[in-house]
Amino acid sequence: MNALSDLQATLEPSRKSWVESANDSANNFPVQNLPFGIFSDRHNDARRVGVAIGDEIVDLAALQAAGLLNLSSKADVFARDTLNDFIALGRDAWRSVRIQLSKLLSSDTATLRDDADLRAKSLVHQADAQLHLPVQIPGYTDFYSSKEHATNVGSMFRDPKNALLPNWSEMPIGYNGRASSVVVSGTPVRRPNGQLKLPDQERPVFGACRKLDIELETGFVIGGGNGLGEPIACAEAEAHIFGMVLLNDWSARDIQQWEYVPLGPFNAKTFATTISPWIVTLDALEPFRVAQPVQEPQPLAYLHHDGEHAFDIHLEVTLRPREAKQASTIARTNFRHMYWTMAQQLAHHTVSGCNTRVGDLMGSGTISGPTGDSYGSLLELTWNGKKPLELREGGTRTFLEDGDELTLAGWCQGDGYRVGFGTCAGEILPARR
Amino acid sequence: MNALSDLQATLEPSRKSWVESANDSANNFPVQNLPFGIFSDRHNDARRVGVAIGDEIVDLAALQAAGLLNLSSKADVFARDTLNDFIALGRDAWRSVRIQLSKLLSSDTATLRDDADLRAKSLVHQADAQLHLPVQIPGYTDFYSSKEHATNVGSMFRDPKNALLPNWSEMPIGYNGRASSVVVSGTPVRRPNGQLKLPDQERPVFGACRKLDIELETGFVIGGGNGLGEPIACAEAEAHIFGMVLLNDWSARDIQQWEYVPLGPFNAKTFATTISPWIVTLDALEPFRVAQPVQEPQPLAYLHHDGEHAFDIHLEVTLRPREAKQASTIARTNFRHMYWTMAQQLAHHTVSGCNTRVGDLMGSGTISGPTGDSYGSLLELTWNGKKPLELREGGTRTFLEDGDELTLAGWCQGDGYRVGFGTCAGEILPARR
Repeated sequence: MNALSDLQATLEPSRKSWVESANDSANNFPVQNLPFGIFSDRHNDARRVGVAIGDEIVDLAALQAAGLLNLSSKADVFARDTLNDFIALGRDAWRSVRIQLSKLLSSDTATLRDDADLRAKSLVHQADAQLHLPVQIPGYTDFYSSKEHATNVGSMFRDPKNALLPNWSEMPIGYNGRASSVVVSGTPVRRPNGQLKLPDQERPVFGACRKLDIELETGFVIGGGNGLGEPIACAEAEAHIFGMVLLNDWSARDIQQWEYVPLGPFNAKTFATTISPWIVTLDALEPFRVAQPVQEPQPLAYLHHDGEHAFDIHLEVTLRPREAKQASTIARTNFRHMYWTMAQQLAHHTVSGCNTRVGDLMGSGTISGPTGDSYGSLLELTWNGKKPLELREGGTRTFLEDGDELTLAGWCQGDGYRVGFGTCAGEILPARR
Repeated sequence: MNALSDLQATLEPSRKSWVESANDSANNFPVQNLPFGIFSDRHNDARRVGVAIGDEIVDLAALQAAGLLNLSSKADVFARDTLNDFIALGRDAWRSVRIQLSKLLSSDTATLRDDADLRAKSLVHQADAQLHLPVQIPGYTDFYSSKEHATNVGSMFRDPKNALLPNWSEMPIGYNGRASSVVVSGTPVRRPNGQLKLPDQERPVFGACRKLDIELETGFVIGGGNGLGEPIACAEAEAHIFGMVLLNDWSARDIQQWEYVPLGPFNAKTFATTISPWIVTLDALEPFRVAQPVQEPQPLAYLHHDGEHAFDIHLEVTLRPREAKQASTIARTNFRHMYWTMAQQLAHHTVSGCNTRVGDLMGSGTISGPTGDSYGSLLELTWNGKKPLELREGGTRTFLEDGDELTLAGWCQGDGYRVGFGTCAGEILPARR
């Protein structure tokens, strides 16, 4: 077990790193963050585990080879093309590695700082690296836990007076997503073809999606699964979470509207889901824990947890048309608005006895805030295309156009530093003909 | 490439095996079948690839070690705990192995027949073996392709006059299932807990499912996947299918009814899905190919395929209460009733660009026939509990009770032999308290 004081020390706002770029107050990856990912670089195309620090990546396989990381397991978990084997070692191991890295990277630790040879072997510039999907994802579930989002969608497509369905306030509604098409930030997204039901025609037509949209979400990655028939209690649920990513649940609204009754979205969502490459651990998010919204009615007992289970994560979405020099910010919101917590989502997911596995990805659902500029989808931002958005360099958008690059960003604002997620981006390619 | 005549020879009705039990006209596994699975036995607990023949299993790892199987790949794919590596070799390899096995097991081939030592090394009695989940399943999708089933459900829960929703006749409606809880036949199924909305109460209660049900389905296993953004054409789709299994999509109807709007079934289905252990190849099913039902309206072009794409597979469901000596047959139907074909399901699944992977499982949806005793769920057989079923040894059932053992069986009837799937069974355990 790791001492709590060691964990606390990793979060100390005054801690600085000898990696100077990490001390820039606008950098996403200060020594307080230390998110995990999978990278390769032009000198070494083998995928391996890395941790972001400032503008650099620490190569954990290289650190371990140099004898600078102690793991209770002798298993080789860092020279791997996914994080799954490392995550499967369990929370004590994640914490221990994070604590060791925090010390190694601190400005007052000489081991790496003063050893140019070791530094050359174990640090890679992010600019020279390629980032890959950080986990092999056995299962992907997407929730629907923003009250504002569910209300907006219900208002548009069902009844503005009864926008929220009765089950919504009783459970974190979720559905199974498609794990195969989860891709890492930077992967282009091809506009899907599918069945579209045009209002003036009796039968559907086949064609390219005309209402391609984003959904601004976060996701959490399962760090410790549960056996079939063994639910995870709500109060224990956070201990099963390795960390969080940004997630764009690309959505074909026209395909969705025609297909989704009665079994839910399918082709409208299965063509791509993008996640950010760095997984920010729950430990790194601990200083940004805040109270979740008041839940009324009080949830059933299996969804109870004491204390604060939301996190203060600033989120924003930008859109850059291919020809544009500058991106336009189209939404700003915060993860703390989410009605259902990650712990409640996981408790609900498993209450039936459903098992989860290391690397499972759980999406939050679209994160919409209370104001019109804080909605997490174009569907809501443009009110189903009725109110086009003005872009910074001219032009407007209702839904996405080919060549548009969408970027999600997220960060927790500390005192003089930010614990950032980096970005989650994708450019729209034309539909296949 | 394998010669077509070699493939045809494996299907020859007159071919017999020196494994005498395989020549019994009621046995599921004649030499014409040769389904693939994963087994272990009391002498050797290592899981490995086997093929069923009569009451025996041929150990392919042992056959290969003895130099009796030629594979173009030198890779060791049979001493494995799933079929995935073998399947990934591609259709020519599956066919080649099946052709070689058919010859080796034919009554007129002496190699194994007359070598007691080799036989002892490579044959295991099914009675002495344990069967395991045959594939690692990266993704599980469930369709909803029986017109009779969709009509019955629509009549009960929506509007009998407009039971079939407009999208149903235009596409094979499907949704993402939960792959983690797919289990092999024989695994007990624990009654799930969850939220139930009782008609006389304003808020849901937490408790054990009271309307636990089966869904009689088949599933197909992807043998050759497709890349992201690269749809599989309908006419090519069957070449991507390795084979078929029986599938029981256990369903908690009360949980389902409360949770499923608007994102579809979730906890009502994620607690368990049972599949049969033997995967029957499409090659073995070839003699039982029949025409699918006429589709009206004619589907959009991407769902077109010429020729016959249904299969004549007899299906039945039995229920045995724990105290009963004999099981009661509660449903008899046939896979040929399915409106949408497997090829159309796969073409639709990938038309958006969604990728599939070796081992992906695709459920047919509940298979209901035209008559009241051919429905594939208790929901339909008892018309949501209004018409209890009489059991053979007395007693009745509306939905499942603890201790009930449910068994699906399926077979194609040849001239003097049957190409069988074996069984897909599970017993209901009481809910967790």
